[in-house]
Amino acid sequence: MVTVNHDYLDLKGSYLFSTIAKKVATYQTNYPEAKIIRMGIGDVTQPLVPAVVEALHKAVDEQANMDTFHGYAPDLGYTFLREKIVEHDYEARGAHVEIDEVFISDGAKGDVANIQEIFGRDNKVAVGDPVYPVYVDSNVMSGRTGTYNAETEMWSDLTYLSATSENNFTPSLPTSHVDLIYLCYPNNPTGTTLTKEALKEWVDYANKEEAIIIYDSAYEAFITDSAIPRSIYEIEGARTCAIEVRSFSKTAGFTGLRLGYTVVPKELVREGVALRSLWARRHSTKFNGAPYIVSRAGEAVYSKEGKKQIKKQIAYYLRNAKMIREYLMEAGYEVFGGTNAPYVWVKTPAGMTSWAFFDFLLEKKQIIVTPGSGFGPSGEGYVRFSAFGEYESVQDAMQRITQ
Amino acid sequence: MVTVNHDYLDLKGSYLFSTIAKKVATYQTNYPEAKIIRMGIGDVTQPLVPAVVEALHKAVDEQANMDTFHGYAPDLGYTFLREKIVEHDYEARGAHVEIDEVFISDGAKGDVANIQEIFGRDNKVAVGDPVYPVYVDSNVMSGRTGTYNAETEMWSDLTYLSATSENNFTPSLPTSHVDLIYLCYPNNPTGTTLTKEALKEWVDYANKEEAIIIYDSAYEAFITDSAIPRSIYEIEGARTCAIEVRSFSKTAGFTGLRLGYTVVPKELVREGVALRSLWARRHSTKFNGAPYIVSRAGEAVYSKEGKKQIKKQIAYYLRNAKMIREYLMEAGYEVFGGTNAPYVWVKTPAGMTSWAFFDFLLEKKQIIVTPGSGFGPSGEGYVRFSAFGEYESVQDAMQRITQ
Repeated sequence: MVTVNHDYLDLKGSYLFSTIAKKVATYQTNYPEAKIIRMGIGDVTQPLVPAVVEALHKAVDEQANMDTFHGYAPDLGYTFLREKIVEHDYEARGAHVEIDEVFISDGAKGDVANIQEIFGRDNKVAVGDPVYPVYVDSNVMSGRTGTYNAETEMWSDLTYLSATSENNFTPSLPTSHVDLIYLCYPNNPTGTTLTKEALKEWVDYANKEEAIIIYDSAYEAFITDSAIPRSIYEIEGARTCAIEVRSFSKTAGFTGLRLGYTVVPKELVREGVALRSLWARRHSTKFNGAPYIVSRAGEAVYSKEGKKQIKKQIAYYLRNAKMIREYLMEAGYEVFGGTNAPYVWVKTPAGMTSWAFFDFLLEKKQIIVTPGSGFGPSGEGYVRFSAFGEYESVQDAMQRITQ
Repeated sequence: MVTVNHDYLDLKGSYLFSTIAKKVATYQTNYPEAKIIRMGIGDVTQPLVPAVVEALHKAVDEQANMDTFHGYAPDLGYTFLREKIVEHDYEARGAHVEIDEVFISDGAKGDVANIQEIFGRDNKVAVGDPVYPVYVDSNVMSGRTGTYNAETEMWSDLTYLSATSENNFTPSLPTSHVDLIYLCYPNNPTGTTLTKEALKEWVDYANKEEAIIIYDSAYEAFITDSAIPRSIYEIEGARTCAIEVRSFSKTAGFTGLRLGYTVVPKELVREGVALRSLWARRHSTKFNGAPYIVSRAGEAVYSKEGKKQIKKQIAYYLRNAKMIREYLMEAGYEVFGGTNAPYVWVKTPAGMTSWAFFDFLLEKKQIIVTPGSGFGPSGEGYVRFSAFGEYESVQDAMQRITQ
């Protein structure tokens, strides 16, 4: 008899953003006239920049001509893109990454969800708390998380790295051994960051414990403070303990275009096996490359014009984040993140739960945020505001809340 | 200590096409002047058709404008595309498929590799032999295939459905129970097909055994004979036993654009769980949608102009297949497939092994084919010719072989 993957059945509820979408759809059906402002899901609203648009048109024309047509991409992705990544994202910051350590993908979500697959099921996993749900769910789906305790809302075999206002959103190193550590900085959902010194402690810990850090730096483009590392490879020792996952989604508005990459250094060897060769094998067996036209769009992000245009777009979102911070602080809210990140993490008023405050904002203010508890137990009592909206909408939302 | 996924270590050699690429690269380094003709990997050579190019340009312009910009796609994919799929690929052929049973993806390879993940590890898997390597490898990587016997080149826990000239490439039903059955028609690699009557036997078997058929119909566009089903849902009873995977790669030259879809009917319930809900959960957790612009390109494939242009392109490749068949038969080769498929399956001469004939064609004729043994033990003694080349190159290759 066919059996299903019972690990899937252990998943709690629907994926967070699907749940929110359903709640909003219900509200919209009941109040079709309501002007809802979306500050929940971290989707961008600014259109693709001119340099990217131009590159796309040019690449589409190439695909229309037999002499310049491109079929399947090379296994690791197009070299023209991987060269630009190494040059601009790493060499320019004094970090050592080689071209054949860069794997192009159709986005960071797939990569962070799939990376666990190259590891054994017996690894002990640590995740930030609150955390991007994909890290937890992909490990639940692979049977690595043990049993769920509905009261604590925790998995028995997961180590939770709690980050709250009490520890200034800097989680302590684990007190017992862990194998795989998911870190995300600038953090989703809290919008907080780690200094080079703080990140160095994690790298040292991982090297000492022979652990692996899976470093999600999807939001690095929002870092304005030079003391904050954009890549984990800026930290000495990271090449022997860290995999880094990057995205074009937030950097250049590619959420609807799909492009990302993962770096697996050659020094990463466990049980005598190079992790790079395992990830290469996964890529060549289960993935068929990012589209040629999208790869060319990614290349354009690194052009002189592209960089200038992207920088302006990032500044636009950071201005939103600043406005959210200022309005909410003015109104007496406790506010975190949002200076080197597109997310503002806000303590709910009067001890409300995250979902209660979510419902309040939806029903009374017609504003969608993301309930902090959806990101893990330590997220309870917070909500996440996304700064990816249009300036005027964000301003409208802030006025609704504070008036 | 971090452990790696030991199931990955069980994989035999590199992925077939990577191995071929390396052999060819070595040859090219040694003989840089050689004019190599590629008839190995099934990659298309004709450019995108005008209707698709126009749709892409239009969609790129939409992405350049805030009012028409699209970020993340809906969980199952854009409705405009799923509606067209249901209308043209199913309703038009009298097959019942509902819009919310269609999941848009970035290609069939990922879907057929990932679909096994929703099933338990204890399912008994049957694959065609020869077979597209991804079905086997994705199950090896999930620990479902047992131990490998280097002599027979078979996995202990896999059931091989042998297809050779002896049984006219129509494998017999398994003699003992199996749970998951991968079928691919028109077949990759043999280019052979099943009649409706023959496919009905598989559907009846699966329903009787409560098995699941994973039906890969990536090459359905090449079917010219009306007695041959294009979809398994043309067969009565398929909705309770079959998942179908489809691709735009070969239909419309999307190998470099990436678009596919998988159909999971609501009737598919095992252990009381709807498989559709498991696949939906995988989609929403581990995938972030096909690009908007590529989805619009897919829509254009179903337009009046698009259909006409695509039909012409398919006819171009089928003319190649016919030429390959005729030249090789004239030269005394035993030839199969290639009438309702873009692949011609050819018996090696004088009892040569597949790789020996591959080496001969590469070194003496500068032609790349795919060795049949790379697709499984029953492929030994055959090679696959792809008809996806340019007409003039294919003709050149045939003249080299037959002169």
